[in-house]
Amino acid sequence: MNESSIIASYNGKSLPLTEVFAPVLDRAFMFSDAVYEVLRVYKGKPFLLSAHTTRLQASLRSMRIAANQDFGDAILNNIAENQVKEGMVYLQISRGVAPRNHSFFAMELKPSILIYTKPFLEHPAAKEQQTGIKGITHEDYRWGRCDIKTTNLLANCLIQTHANEMGAQEAILIRNGVVSEGTSSNVFIVKNGIFITPPKSTFILAGTRRQFLIDGLLAAGHSVIERQVEKTELFNADEIFISSTVKEVTSVVQLDQKPVGKGIVGPFAKLAQALLDDAILAMK
Amino acid sequence: MNESSIIASYNGKSLPLTEVFAPVLDRAFMFSDAVYEVLRVYKGKPFLLSAHTTRLQASLRSMRIAANQDFGDAILNNIAENQVKEGMVYLQISRGVAPRNHSFFAMELKPSILIYTKPFLEHPAAKEQQTGIKGITHEDYRWGRCDIKTTNLLANCLIQTHANEMGAQEAILIRNGVVSEGTSSNVFIVKNGIFITPPKSTFILAGTRRQFLIDGLLAAGHSVIERQVEKTELFNADEIFISSTVKEVTSVVQLDQKPVGKGIVGPFAKLAQALLDDAILAMK
Repeated sequence: MNESSIIASYNGKSLPLTEVFAPVLDRAFMFSDAVYEVLRVYKGKPFLLSAHTTRLQASLRSMRIAANQDFGDAILNNIAENQVKEGMVYLQISRGVAPRNHSFFAMELKPSILIYTKPFLEHPAAKEQQTGIKGITHEDYRWGRCDIKTTNLLANCLIQTHANEMGAQEAILIRNGVVSEGTSSNVFIVKNGIFITPPKSTFILAGTRRQFLIDGLLAAGHSVIERQVEKTELFNADEIFISSTVKEVTSVVQLDQKPVGKGIVGPFAKLAQALLDDAILAMK
Repeated sequence: MNESSIIASYNGKSLPLTEVFAPVLDRAFMFSDAVYEVLRVYKGKPFLLSAHTTRLQASLRSMRIAANQDFGDAILNNIAENQVKEGMVYLQISRGVAPRNHSFFAMELKPSILIYTKPFLEHPAAKEQQTGIKGITHEDYRWGRCDIKTTNLLANCLIQTHANEMGAQEAILIRNGVVSEGTSSNVFIVKNGIFITPPKSTFILAGTRRQFLIDGLLAAGHSVIERQVEKTELFNADEIFISSTVKEVTSVVQLDQKPVGKGIVGPFAKLAQALLDDAILAMK
C-alpha cells in the first residue's frame, strides 16, 4: 500500500499511516462516532483552510465532541512533515475510547485525533474533468444529519460502489423527489445560463467548494440560485456538475445513460473551474 | 476499564480487549463499513445462537462482505476462553483494510473479525425490569437500511444520549408518524390483550427477541399482530415494552413524561418475560 510512505499524526505522535492502530473500543470503530475533514493541498499549502477548520468546529459542536483546539497548526505541521506539494489532508476526530455503550451520557472522553497528508502524483480528477463523468440517480437513504461531516458514511459507500458497478463515477442522490447532493460531492445544474444548487439543509453537507463557487460566481456577475432541484430538472439541464475538494468541478455528461445537455463538458462548468484555478494560482 | 480482563479474539488471535488495536485504515473506522451481533450468554451458553448467526450471514450478504465461516464455533470458543456464565458476546466483522475510498468496487479485502465476551456480575436489566423504564418519543432520522445490523449507528447513539439527558432510558423512534423501534430495541404495545408490534421493514432490525416473543406468544395462544403502530397509539396503549438481547423484556411505564396505562409494569410484559425465562431455564 502506498499509504505506508505517508506520515500520520495520531494523537500528536508521528508514524507511518499503515502503522497507526486505534483501540477497537474507540467509538469511531463501533459507532461511527467521529467527524472528519478532507482538505486539498496545492503548492504545499492547504486550500480554504479556515473554511475547513470552521466547518470542523461546527461538526464538533453538533456532535458535542470537546476537542479544544483549532487544528490549523496540526494540519500545517503534517503537510510539512510529509513535504507534500500536491495532495490532500485527512483529519478525523473521534469521541474517544470507552466500554461499548450507545449512549455517551456523562462519559468524559478524550477525543482521538488522526491527521495524514496524501500526496497526489497527478491531479486526481484530471481525466474526469476533461471528459466529464457518468452519473446515476439514486434514492438518498442516508440519515437525516448529512449536514454534519461524520464517518456515518455507510450509505455513501454502498451507493458509490453501486454507481461504479453501473459504470458510473458518481450518484446524484434524490430524497423525496428532489436532489440533495452526490455521495461525496455537491451538485449544481445550469439552465439558461443560471447556476442552480440545492439550498443548505440537514440533507446536504455545506461543501467548502460549493460555497466558494456560489460566492465566486455571484461576485463575477453570474446568476446563482439556491433552491430545491426536482429530479426531473436534472434531465432537462443544460449542464450538471459536481463540486468537491478532490474532484473540484467535474461535469456529469451522462446521467442514467442519457446525455446531459450536449453530452460534453460545458462552458459553465469550465467557467466555474476557472474560478477555482484562479484562486489556486493566486495562493501565496 | 473492566474491559481489560476480557479476552478478545481479533482475527483469530486472543488478547485482552483493551489491547486490541485495529488499523485506522480499517473501513469500520472511517466509514462504519462493518456488521455486528450481540448475543446473550446464560449458563455459559449463547442463547438463540442460530438466530444470531443466521442474521449475521444475512447482514454479510446484504453488505457483500465475504466472510466464509459460520462464526458459531468462534463464539463458543470465546465464551469458553472467558469462562463466562452470564454475559454477552460482541462480534463485529468489518469489510477490511484499504486506502481510504468510499467505493469498495473491485477491492478484494480481507474482513477483520473481532469477538469478545463480557461477563455480567448481575442481570443488566434487573432493576429496569422491576420498575420499568422511562421513554421518550423521538424522530427516527436514521438511514433507510436499519434492517442490516451495521455499525452505522451514530443516530442511535445521539438519540439514546439525548434520552438519557431527558432522564429517560430509551427512545421510541417515530418515522413518518409511525413507530419503528427503539434505539437498541424493538417495541411492542399491548391493547385490549393484543400484542402489537411494527412489521419487518427496512426501518427496523428484525430482533431475535422480537421473533422469539412473536412465535412464543402465538404458540401460547395469545394474539399478536404485526402492523404499523401510529405514534398516537403509544399514548393509548395499556402497556408498552421493548425487547432486546440485553434488556430482554423491559416495560416502558412512562412516555414523554406521561404514564403508560397504569404506569406500572403490566401483566402482559411479565407474561412475555416469562416465556423468555422458561426458555432460558430449559437451556441445556
